[in-house]
Amino acid sequence: MKDELFAIASRVREALRGIADSDTAGDAVGKGVDGAPSYRADMIADRAASEALDSLSLKLNVLSEESPYVDRGAEQTLVIDPLDGSHNFIQGIPFYAVSLAVGSKSLSGMMYAMVMNVVTGDVFYAEKGRGAFLNDKPIRVRKYDEKSSMFLVYMGSNASLNSYDIARKTSRARSLGSASLEMCYVAHGVADLFYMRCSDNNYALRIVDIAASSLILREAGGEVYDMTGNIFDMKLDISDRKSLLAVGDKNLRRLAI
Amino acid sequence: MKDELFAIASRVREALRGIADSDTAGDAVGKGVDGAPSYRADMIADRAASEALDSLSLKLNVLSEESPYVDRGAEQTLVIDPLDGSHNFIQGIPFYAVSLAVGSKSLSGMMYAMVMNVVTGDVFYAEKGRGAFLNDKPIRVRKYDEKSSMFLVYMGSNASLNSYDIARKTSRARSLGSASLEMCYVAHGVADLFYMRCSDNNYALRIVDIAASSLILREAGGEVYDMTGNIFDMKLDISDRKSLLAVGDKNLRRLAI
Repeated sequence: MKDELFAIASRVREALRGIADSDTAGDAVGKGVDGAPSYRADMIADRAASEALDSLSLKLNVLSEESPYVDRGAEQTLVIDPLDGSHNFIQGIPFYAVSLAVGSKSLSGMMYAMVMNVVTGDVFYAEKGRGAFLNDKPIRVRKYDEKSSMFLVYMGSNASLNSYDIARKTSRARSLGSASLEMCYVAHGVADLFYMRCSDNNYALRIVDIAASSLILREAGGEVYDMTGNIFDMKLDISDRKSLLAVGDKNLRRLAI
Repeated sequence: MKDELFAIASRVREALRGIADSDTAGDAVGKGVDGAPSYRADMIADRAASEALDSLSLKLNVLSEESPYVDRGAEQTLVIDPLDGSHNFIQGIPFYAVSLAVGSKSLSGMMYAMVMNVVTGDVFYAEKGRGAFLNDKPIRVRKYDEKSSMFLVYMGSNASLNSYDIARKTSRARSLGSASLEMCYVAHGVADLFYMRCSDNNYALRIVDIAASSLILREAGGEVYDMTGNIFDMKLDISDRKSLLAVGDKNLRRLAI
């Protein structure tokens, strides 16, 4: 499955790099299936992913941020956000990714996961039970050490107030604007946690954003929790939205509750 | 001067890319001249800059983050941070820059400025009175519009509490960890402001971090303010530290006071 996911991600990357300097990439072109605004860049990325998938001999259902659910009667579903970090891309901040996961039933049923940094070409990959990798080298989460901590925290007017309390617990707080990549940096032991809690659930994360990064993080030794401190899961449903705490060191679970 | 600054920045970029995957880039190797910790990566970047400067026929004094002041009796001083965003570099977050400015007397006396994104190779450049450029194309700040706003805000345990109030005024808050690049994104009209206010002034910005980006932002139509709302300036002195508000639209000055 890795080669197939890489082929899809590479095709999307190529399409996005082709329009990165275009003035019309940020044109609003309607709404995605969940009602969030779609931009021309999102549509181009989604089309590139569809075309790449069609050219492969894979029978998969498709759950995408941008297109209606495609039911091919397959056992497994490709869960895809072709451009995670749309606002970064559109505005010109070089930090966004393609997120791809394959599995069944729910977020915790994902078996294969890839997140590609479109700017650098770095590839995070995991298979359930077989570990997580960055550019084919194994990656592991790190143990939390307050002195050298780095927290990735979603902020802004839609963040819950306690997000700011969490950001104040580290001397190195970052907010990078791409949940899938930020969770991969936790998996890589670069950061200790990613926290995204919204005051209005309509802005919270969807399964397409984090299906891949959740598997990558768990395979690297980390965990994802919901806002009651339980193990995080989501339905295979684009309308489901949730806040989360993703950690490298499970001792940080206490921050979720 | 542009070609010379480009030669220096390119040499630093090459040196940094050579050690980006090295396990020892983050080794602490002492303290910079201002007492802040220095890492192996900072030293390698600084040495590359020195060597590049020595190979050019430029007579400049040098004020660097990492080395003692070099007084060549020249009229102008090269003000350099060879690696702005050290923690990003060391930890593996692909967002850091080389910052170079040339001028005399103080931050406001800078005449030439270059900030190079080491990851992408993008080059921001300005000359006093001649405008600001990204990869040779003119750039301008944008007018503030609340609906599509993006604020870049320094956060974490060393940020002043009101930093969080500012981050809550936008639906798109980012904290990227490289002041020079973040100010260039304001100059480019990507973001509306960069705010860095420290609760302890020992963590605030030095002239080496922002001499270049301040000129680039001003040449793009923006402004930099201190925490009383006055026009920002700094001495040519590595021990001077200050908080700032950098804006594209001068109507945002009110946020400084």
